[in-house]
Amino acid sequence: RRGEMAKSTQLIDNEVFQAYATYTAIVLLKMMLMSLVTAYFRITRKAFVNPEDTASFGKGESAKKYLRTDPDVERVRRGHLNDLENIVPFVGIGLLYALSGPELSTALLHFRIFTGARILHTFAYLIPLPQPGRGLSWAVGYSVTFSMAYKVLKTAWLL
Amino acid sequence: RRGEMAKSTQLIDNEVFQAYATYTAIVLLKMMLMSLVTAYFRITRKAFVNPEDTASFGKGESAKKYLRTDPDVERVRRGHLNDLENIVPFVGIGLLYALSGPELSTALLHFRIFTGARILHTFAYLIPLPQPGRGLSWAVGYSVTFSMAYKVLKTAWLL
Amino acid sequence: RRGEMAKSTQLIDNEVFQAYATYTAIVLLKMMLMSLVTAYFRITRKAFVNPEDTASFGKGESAKKYLRTDPDVERVRRGHLNDLENIVPFVGIGLLYALSGPELSTALLHFRIFTGARILHTFAYLIPLPQPGRGLSWAVGYSVTFSMAYKVLKTAWLL
Repeated sequence: RRGEMAKSTQLIDNEVFQAYATYTAIVLLKMMLMSLVTAYFRITRKAFVNPEDTASFGKGESAKKYLRTDPDVERVRRGHLNDLENIVPFVGIGLLYALSGPELSTALLHFRIFTGARILHTFAYLIPLPQPGRGLSWAVGYSVTFSMAYKVLKTAWLL
Repeated sequence: RRGEMAKSTQLIDNEVFQAYATYTAIVLLKMMLMSLVTAYFRITRKAFVNPEDTASFGKGESAKKYLRTDPDVERVRRGHLNDLENIVPFVGIGLLYALSGPELSTALLHFRIFTGARILHTFAYLIPLPQPGRGLSWAVGYSVTFSMAYKVLKTAWLL
Repeated sequence: RRGEMAKSTQLIDNEVFQAYATYTAIVLLKMMLMSLVTAYFRITRKAFVNPEDTASFGKGESAKKYLRTDPDVERVRRGHLNDLENIVPFVGIGLLYALSGPELSTALLHFRIFTGARILHTFAYLIPLPQPGRGLSWAVGYSVTFSMAYKVLKTAWLL
């Protein structure tokens, strides 16, 4: 009995929670990738923001010219910030949603559509695709999070 | 017994956790609203940052003039970033706090004051209200999160 | 039995979860500190961004000159944003990792190295230390989060 009890308290044994864990990990790893893409563009475009980052290019004016903004770097940074603005609500509301007892199939649908939409959003931002590509992929992810928040508030409302 | 066990592992049946779920969903939805307010100001002020977003205004110079910053857009974006900086710690520390076994009334007090303070902060930022309106609403939310962190560290400390 | 059950559902009684709670609280408090450091530099450098924040310095041109960017303020803000980009994945993936049943010693190693690396990163950014000080501390925290995500996906994978 002890074992069973210990097991049943491990959220990770719950299928909906497993699905949440999987897609949250994927979507957070995708967000983390943006740091590497930013670093890649900073190095290849030679566009830095901190003086100490350009020290290896020499001293004085020869290094100073690399302290500049680059359109590609700024684009990746906007994509990264948009991820933060949208993935943070997904992770928070998604956790509450996973604990609110949804059907596994419904939960998977939410998690998968959100994950797909955010991956599309990144490609739409970085390529970039013509609008409304980026706008639509953003709106789909936004709507999924909204739908989960509705379920959470319906289940947990206690004011 | 099985049913009871399954039930007791559903955090959503715990009243403090229900309160956490409710206010976290509200405060994250409020943060998500900032995206819509930004979009509203970008469209009404015709102030965009991505060239592909101005394609519908024509080609060349006629579209290029809408690639500019607007004070109202920038103000909403600062409010949004401030939300991220303050709501992320609330969601993370609040979850640990909700699981640390606080009194329901004390927990509700924390969650309600934080939520109210952040809603006030948004109005103070967007209207804008004269200082110290925004500063005070920020400080109240900050202090609530700090108070919850203190309870978490007192309960869980294990180094 | 009832008591035992209630107790075993309190995640906070699980040692790995206690460790997660402790280090997550510390690292989120560290991130919150960046707001105070920003405020400190804004006030001492007299560099503000919102017109209503400079109202106490007088009216018109005499106050307007304090609406400017300052290198030290911008440096702290970059550190703060870097915290958001890295601590959000740690908090989200770390929670899932703590629930995936790792050894306490392995979990502690992950949490401690991440926390240490992010504290070092802040000092490296604010002092600033010559590179690769900041780069290395960033990479260590990043790798720890990646390692936890690998464990989560190995445990929970359900597509």
